[in-house]
Amino acid sequence: MRTVTKDNITDVFRGYMADDMPPRTREVMSALVRHLHDFARETQLTHDEWRQGIAFLEGCAAIETADRHEFVLASDVLGLSSLVDMINSGPAATSSSVLGPFHVSGAPPLAVGGDMKRDFGGPVLLAEGVIRDPDGKPIPGAQIDIWQTAPNGLYASQDDAQDTYSFHGLMTVGDDGRYAFTTVKPVEYTVPSDGPVGDILRACGRHPWRPSHLHYIVKAPGYRTLVTEVFPDDDPYLDQDTVFGVREDLVMTYVERPADEFPDGMALSGKVADPFLHVAFDVTLAAL
Amino acid sequence: MRTVTKDNITDVFRGYMADDMPPRTREVMSALVRHLHDFARETQLTHDEWRQGIAFLEGCAAIETADRHEFVLASDVLGLSSLVDMINSGPAATSSSVLGPFHVSGAPPLAVGGDMKRDFGGPVLLAEGVIRDPDGKPIPGAQIDIWQTAPNGLYASQDDAQDTYSFHGLMTVGDDGRYAFTTVKPVEYTVPSDGPVGDILRACGRHPWRPSHLHYIVKAPGYRTLVTEVFPDDDPYLDQDTVFGVREDLVMTYVERPADEFPDGMALSGKVADPFLHVAFDVTLAAL
Repeated sequence: MRTVTKDNITDVFRGYMADDMPPRTREVMSALVRHLHDFARETQLTHDEWRQGIAFLEGCAAIETADRHEFVLASDVLGLSSLVDMINSGPAATSSSVLGPFHVSGAPPLAVGGDMKRDFGGPVLLAEGVIRDPDGKPIPGAQIDIWQTAPNGLYASQDDAQDTYSFHGLMTVGDDGRYAFTTVKPVEYTVPSDGPVGDILRACGRHPWRPSHLHYIVKAPGYRTLVTEVFPDDDPYLDQDTVFGVREDLVMTYVERPADEFPDGMALSGKVADPFLHVAFDVTLAAL
Repeated sequence: MRTVTKDNITDVFRGYMADDMPPRTREVMSALVRHLHDFARETQLTHDEWRQGIAFLEGCAAIETADRHEFVLASDVLGLSSLVDMINSGPAATSSSVLGPFHVSGAPPLAVGGDMKRDFGGPVLLAEGVIRDPDGKPIPGAQIDIWQTAPNGLYASQDDAQDTYSFHGLMTVGDDGRYAFTTVKPVEYTVPSDGPVGDILRACGRHPWRPSHLHYIVKAPGYRTLVTEVFPDDDPYLDQDTVFGVREDLVMTYVERPADEFPDGMALSGKVADPFLHVAFDVTLAAL
């Protein structure tokens, strides 16, 4: 018989896989198990540490619901989600960034120039830009799904005081590819840290903060769907986003401008009496 | 600001950890994340594959109960459980092997020479041996927790037709360190393959079979607790145990012997009319 040892078990695992399995599955499973085994061998992982790992997974399982995605959050704070985003981003397109756990499908339509601020306090933020193809031409009819935190740092899905689609909107751009909307500046917030992922952050002496951001999912027929975020360049957490979502091309200056420079053709035109913030952020989609 | 890229994200992760965190936690988390990131970079992991991974974890979570430990099973079939066993086994002691998911605490006492076969059919198996220290001396008062499958391939915890402690016993050895009991030969069985772990086995073209075995947990004050298994040397799955539990020193010959060689001093002495099987398996515990 063949003796399984700590040095040959990775080869034994490879030998267990069938010759006719799909090559990509073989490649991914082989790499996964090789790294898993190397991790245990290099660290000389103890039984107690193995049990802690199992307890972590079981702890995530215990709080996993349709609204609480602890395994995704674990992937986020370990940098895996962002790494997969970067591996799959083309150089010709705007960088992608983490989807996060707070996106809600079915946001109501928001006309170009529309408003998401409603009666919330603070200065108006006007966000606008053009959705372009890799040659710089506008993409007529592109769709942007927009969502962000309320001024209290909570997304609608976390906050009983907001309706389901508060600070959510789905905008379809015209022939000029231009999007524009008014809102309030999103705020920094913490990822949920009352579960096993919070325990990991604390064990590593890490904070749970993310810099403030607008979320966009941008889609158009014939182009790769882009999940991304827009960050202000003065955010204190820009260099230490706990989910590693910041990319250089997603960081923009939010310029303060006088009320009389507020443009026409917006839902709030003629109603802005105080200085407002303005951010211009163009998006380039990769062709499929 | 520092730009996070797919090439530097592992360093950025390390930089997020606090200087004053426990050194062992730093070592384990650094190695874990380095291997996780290298796995994604080497395979150029796609978003779809990442989602499959998350769906696997969520699928395990959905069926995890006090009686169904799918994360442990995943660790078992990927070889991690056995690898951790081997990393933590000393060369002077009997090899450890997987605990598996079917151990039940609180087994009733079984006297030395006692019987677990009861009215089940098939030939009697007599298992015996001596619990020794690394110098070969018997360890008086050592305790063996024994469990195995019934002839139908099911453990008591899986089978409503068996009582809770069917084929479970807790034996305390005397001054000679000797244990002995009668039972039936355990049978090969499959690990549960109706969950996400079964999907992985099928995706890899692997079977879910384990060779037949007796389970022992052996304890004595001053010695390291040993979790191990005893395998017959003629089992067809010896070289392809789906959880990688077979070690050379745990494989024993089950010898068929005539009824008149059945020893005295056993619960079944005088009651064995047919040839019986005999396995001798000594156990060496490592000092603490």
